[in-house]
Amino acid sequence: MARIAVVAGDGIGTEVTAQARKVIDAVLPGSTYNEYDLGARLYNRTGEVLPRSVQDELAGHDAILLGAIGDPSVPPGILERGLLLKLRFDFDQYVNLRPSKLWPGTTSPLAGVKPGEIDMVVVREGTEGLYVGAGGVLHQDTPAEIATEESLNTRHGVERVIRDAFARAQRRDRRHVTLVHKTNVLTKAGSLWARTFAAVAAEHPDITTEYQHIDAASMFMVSNPQRFDVVVTDNLFGDILTDIAAAVTGGIGMAASGSVNPERAYPSTFEPVHGSAPDIAGKGIADPAAAILSAALLLEHLGHLDEARRVTEAVAAEVASRAPGAPLRTAEVGDRVAAAV
Amino acid sequence: MARIAVVAGDGIGTEVTAQARKVIDAVLPGSTYNEYDLGARLYNRTGEVLPRSVQDELAGHDAILLGAIGDPSVPPGILERGLLLKLRFDFDQYVNLRPSKLWPGTTSPLAGVKPGEIDMVVVREGTEGLYVGAGGVLHQDTPAEIATEESLNTRHGVERVIRDAFARAQRRDRRHVTLVHKTNVLTKAGSLWARTFAAVAAEHPDITTEYQHIDAASMFMVSNPQRFDVVVTDNLFGDILTDIAAAVTGGIGMAASGSVNPERAYPSTFEPVHGSAPDIAGKGIADPAAAILSAALLLEHLGHLDEARRVTEAVAAEVASRAPGAPLRTAEVGDRVAAAV
Ligand SMILES: CC(C)[C@H](C(=O)O)[C@@H](O)C(=O)O
Ligand SMILES: CC(C)[C@H](C(=O)O)[C@@H](O)C(=O)O
Repeated sequence: MARIAVVAGDGIGTEVTAQARKVIDAVLPGSTYNEYDLGARLYNRTGEVLPRSVQDELAGHDAILLGAIGDPSVPPGILERGLLLKLRFDFDQYVNLRPSKLWPGTTSPLAGVKPGEIDMVVVREGTEGLYVGAGGVLHQDTPAEIATEESLNTRHGVERVIRDAFARAQRRDRRHVTLVHKTNVLTKAGSLWARTFAAVAAEHPDITTEYQHIDAASMFMVSNPQRFDVVVTDNLFGDILTDIAAAVTGGIGMAASGSVNPERAYPSTFEPVHGSAPDIAGKGIADPAAAILSAALLLEHLGHLDEARRVTEAVAAEVASRAPGAPLRTAEVGDRVAAAV
Repeated sequence: MARIAVVAGDGIGTEVTAQARKVIDAVLPGSTYNEYDLGARLYNRTGEVLPRSVQDELAGHDAILLGAIGDPSVPPGILERGLLLKLRFDFDQYVNLRPSKLWPGTTSPLAGVKPGEIDMVVVREGTEGLYVGAGGVLHQDTPAEIATEESLNTRHGVERVIRDAFARAQRRDRRHVTLVHKTNVLTKAGSLWARTFAAVAAEHPDITTEYQHIDAASMFMVSNPQRFDVVVTDNLFGDILTDIAAAVTGGIGMAASGSVNPERAYPSTFEPVHGSAPDIAGKGIADPAAAILSAALLLEHLGHLDEARRVTEAVAAEVASRAPGAPLRTAEVGDRVAAAV
């Protein structure tokens, strides 16, 4: 049983989240759900993104199940910064968790790469770096204009996310952690990351480690994604790497994510990586696989490991059973997975 | 005729640069070459990376032909910052030019993508952003440590590189420019880039434009690289994007680059994107294609457009004529291209 806040959001968010909830209900009966109408609708009606009272209510839940946020009617940045990033920062969701797997039944755009060969998890830092919003603009719209962005990194923030990555590697078969940064150019933050990584690695002699610059890692994501097991990296590099990882595992259709506070001092947010896809919204044809896999991450986070495994396996089996080219109905996928768990 | 400084550098740098020089000699007889022994050897012997007197001599040339810099014996960052980045900054090489093309005879790791389908040029800013080295470390090696990196962006710097991108698009068939940034998170620098891009675009009604976030652009580089023509972006995003572009066009074997000062107030540097590859150095088996294509960029920069075109076409023909799996001899490739131009 879990107390779950549901933020279905915009576009296909509503449709896919309904399936995720259906599956949680099947595997963990008795959970309670409170729905919060946040996103473009609320913003367009009231100008508010995340009212204080709603944030306080969200804080009282075990986890947040999120669909998708965003609509062409809202200027870019407002909902992202006001809702998604605000939750990550205010709820101290410092582990941004993004598994990438090439599932049976899905096709990689990479020639010759077969299902099962790619299986990694990117542990992206979620509360620091260039995402903190530090910086400014001077002399705007004049030839003298300057704009700055500042990346802030603390030993505290870097160490805890690196520890989390090693803990996850410990539970995996290959037990390999790759640090990705750009230490040859970002020498200050890079040094902090590299020294902290080395210190934590020294405590884990059973885990093999590797360092790659972000440009090389991006290239390897394409030329040899099989080499990655656990990847730990900063907020911005993680944003980029996880989208490449999603692309090489067949796009964002199966990409789940969690913005996690591992200590559960605050609720964590679980959401598919895909967006609100206004073009197909309301048609009942959106693939809920990524949303349901995000629900599995939610279950795992709350300690329901067996339930999480059953959901993940049911999604994998459903996807593998799809006839190529056959039309997909959102609700039917949810029904099949819910029946299978 | 041109006055060319040759910095062959480390590992395979010497071998491939010799071929590039051979080809320039064939197509532009009478050019003069001065060789500068910079890189790991000089550093290990003297502790110096770029002596002031050498830099002053380099400044007196029309262009710099560079091979590859780097060796495992030198700690990472020293040669990169002390030589490559120093030249970019001190010689105001604000256009970091990286064409990516899927050439006949090469294979993309992307299934179903055929030679000719990918043809883009990334115009990466070369003198600003996170590469300036601003920031610091406080309380190092204590739990209170913080490290910062600052991205500095000026209207001056952003506008000139965007103008260069539009000028290049004007000379291409598709006349399309994509701005890549992360405006929804890096709101200060993103706003400067977006406003400047819009202003320059308004002066070019015959060029179509598009904006993509760096994460989406990285994904499109894999799922649909065909959509890109000219891409303009900041220093760090350009570093990442060009390596993905190189990967999807078959790796860095054909990736040429120029660090260009378009006004020719200072010499520009031309170099293959690949590194010094110590593992195959000295064997005469390194592929000089990227180095020779970099020489073509050098010729184009100096106004020898017809010569540049002939070199590019000769490299393309040589690569297309290679028997699959046949061993490659560095000098023979150079000879064939030199004979063909
Ligand atoms: C929407 C945006 C702010 C966000 C990010 O950059 O983190 C998204 O790209 C993601 O990866 O969750
Ligand atoms: C060697 C390194 C400093 C350099 C960069 O980051 O610009 C390299 O990756 C490149 O792309 O030329």
